[in-house]
Amino acid sequence: MLIKDLDTPCLVLNKKQVQKNIDAMQCRMDALGITMRPHGKTAKSIDVINLFEPKHRQKITVSTLKEAEYYFDNGVKDLMYAVGIAPCKLPRLLALIRKGAKISVVLDSLQQVAFLSQCGHDNNVEIPALIEIDCDDHRAGIVPEDPKLIEIGRALNEWPGVCLKGVMTHAGGSYDCQSIEQIKNLAELEKQAALKCVERLNQSQLTCDVVSIGSTPTAMFCEELNGITEIRAGVFMFQDLVMHGLGICETDEIALSVLTSVIGRHELKNWLLVDAGWMALSRDRGTQNQSIDYKYGQACDLAGVPIRHLLVESTNQEHGILAFSSPPIEPLKDTTIGTILRILPNHACATAAMHNQYYVTQDNKTISEVWQRVNGW
Amino acid sequence: MLIKDLDTPCLVLNKKQVQKNIDAMQCRMDALGITMRPHGKTAKSIDVINLFEPKHRQKITVSTLKEAEYYFDNGVKDLMYAVGIAPCKLPRLLALIRKGAKISVVLDSLQQVAFLSQCGHDNNVEIPALIEIDCDDHRAGIVPEDPKLIEIGRALNEWPGVCLKGVMTHAGGSYDCQSIEQIKNLAELEKQAALKCVERLNQSQLTCDVVSIGSTPTAMFCEELNGITEIRAGVFMFQDLVMHGLGICETDEIALSVLTSVIGRHELKNWLLVDAGWMALSRDRGTQNQSIDYKYGQACDLAGVPIRHLLVESTNQEHGILAFSSPPIEPLKDTTIGTILRILPNHACATAAMHNQYYVTQDNKTISEVWQRVNGW
Repeated sequence: MLIKDLDTPCLVLNKKQVQKNIDAMQCRMDALGITMRPHGKTAKSIDVINLFEPKHRQKITVSTLKEAEYYFDNGVKDLMYAVGIAPCKLPRLLALIRKGAKISVVLDSLQQVAFLSQCGHDNNVEIPALIEIDCDDHRAGIVPEDPKLIEIGRALNEWPGVCLKGVMTHAGGSYDCQSIEQIKNLAELEKQAALKCVERLNQSQLTCDVVSIGSTPTAMFCEELNGITEIRAGVFMFQDLVMHGLGICETDEIALSVLTSVIGRHELKNWLLVDAGWMALSRDRGTQNQSIDYKYGQACDLAGVPIRHLLVESTNQEHGILAFSSPPIEPLKDTTIGTILRILPNHACATAAMHNQYYVTQDNKTISEVWQRVNGW
Repeated sequence: MLIKDLDTPCLVLNKKQVQKNIDAMQCRMDALGITMRPHGKTAKSIDVINLFEPKHRQKITVSTLKEAEYYFDNGVKDLMYAVGIAPCKLPRLLALIRKGAKISVVLDSLQQVAFLSQCGHDNNVEIPALIEIDCDDHRAGIVPEDPKLIEIGRALNEWPGVCLKGVMTHAGGSYDCQSIEQIKNLAELEKQAALKCVERLNQSQLTCDVVSIGSTPTAMFCEELNGITEIRAGVFMFQDLVMHGLGICETDEIALSVLTSVIGRHELKNWLLVDAGWMALSRDRGTQNQSIDYKYGQACDLAGVPIRHLLVESTNQEHGILAFSSPPIEPLKDTTIGTILRILPNHACATAAMHNQYYVTQDNKTISEVWQRVNGW
């Protein structure tokens, strides 16, 4: 099947480019002497994860238990559920452990240790947990200096039904960096936050098998990782306009795009209407505060080549409005209703989340495979 | 099953409130002497549409052909596909017509008439089309004065394989109104734009069986609809914070909420972390420019009662950060990890789009039914 014959809107994934993006990261990790625990939340597809070398896909990070169940059923046995554990997640967590999954959870409170311990004890299993560290004042976790670190570590070590697996942190603030220098500094901060916690735990005779850090920006710029045992990152597999804005990739390294049909023209305004609205693109406006604001995405021709300054200016549910962001406004007279375009996403995780499958191409002309995604919870 | 025992995050729908919202709109339409063509794109569920009285659900509006196929298979025979028609949609449109669907399309160009005519002629069917009118400079359609109106009308009337069904317009700009007065003015403008086109077409001996207008805000405030044959609107079934900001509803009339668990507490910042991120809430920020900015949504207790000033301050994929928007900051000490909360959505269409089903309650305590949604294209 040819890309141009697909029903629009739909999600097109360039497998060759995904492979290149993965290879580049693996090469970097190999040079640093570290293995990955890739984040499965961007792709939500075992077919994408299978593009990694075996050693870099022995273990995986997930953001939902549905992903955990899916990746486990597809052969990945070592899983980290990287969202703070809540009591309602325990039955499914337990079911995974009983099926043989080596799944760890993350937490940052004694209350979480208590209900995990109760659950593990009552069910005669030992649930491994990582203490979440807040390295950049961004979201969850305790700061490296927090006295609770040792309390939580001791509880995980001593209470029944649980065990201390290690520490993890995520420099989510890296998405808001304004320069490579800032990203490098944050990568160092992320590493130091984790190492500081390991040191403090060690001083209390508490050991960490896992010292886990990572985000795509910091993974791209971290240097020398002594003491770190694994790197988590996800969006680098596809790349996107936010990563481009951060200086992480070129636009031609973005592997994901939304295929769309022109459904109207507004000649006075030099607008094109397309059938990719926020339902197909997502409402993500991640480039809004970057030096180039791509609005709801960059328009490309059918081959995936960006059309200079043509952006998705605004969206409704099933309508997108394309307009030139910068004068001189070029005429759109060559496009007619039915012309097929492609839109590069602001945020690959968010755009992919609006779709149930990838139409996979290797040559930007034909569709060779269709890969399913595991959405939902 | 009790709401508090559901896995989070998930979508909860209060059926009694949906019924009240639908009844209020039906009552208004009955008083105006007009029938509805409810928009199926918000609910994407026949169970919701079946809450309408039979006369107000004889015909329906859809935003995708997948919705059209689904509603047709579930007994709704009269459909309007209200997104400008593109060539790649023709095979599925044709299949629906052959199965007996009375489906009309919308268009605003001679090019669209030409490919529809070719398709209808080649397949020995007559495809009914409405001319889309731009009443508020918002999106698609031709302005009422455009000479193309008559050209397109004549082509639909004379060319084989197509027929002129009427005109349709949508005052999408009503979402950006700042007052009820503005909405009323726009409702009048929407109506007058449609009637002006009918008048012009009639002067050229072209007749309109269907004169279709509507959006939730204008449907709530339109007055006297002589000459209009149907009203389209969708979001009123659920209501949302954007509609609340427009003065259309109270927050306790919002029937939709996202159920979420507290997964972390940040005492210094007085933050709660919850497991509803943008994956569960959507990235929609529709209240951003309204007088009250609800950020990513209003937090409520388990019973659905808003917690004053507690908003979803920011979101990541599977994390939401709740914080008080206004001092004095109240302590969050009563909530613990595992506390279940509910989040009212900014934009019901966008939030519901992130989920595959509704957990339906009548008493805000127990789940009586699970209703499926028809997402995708």
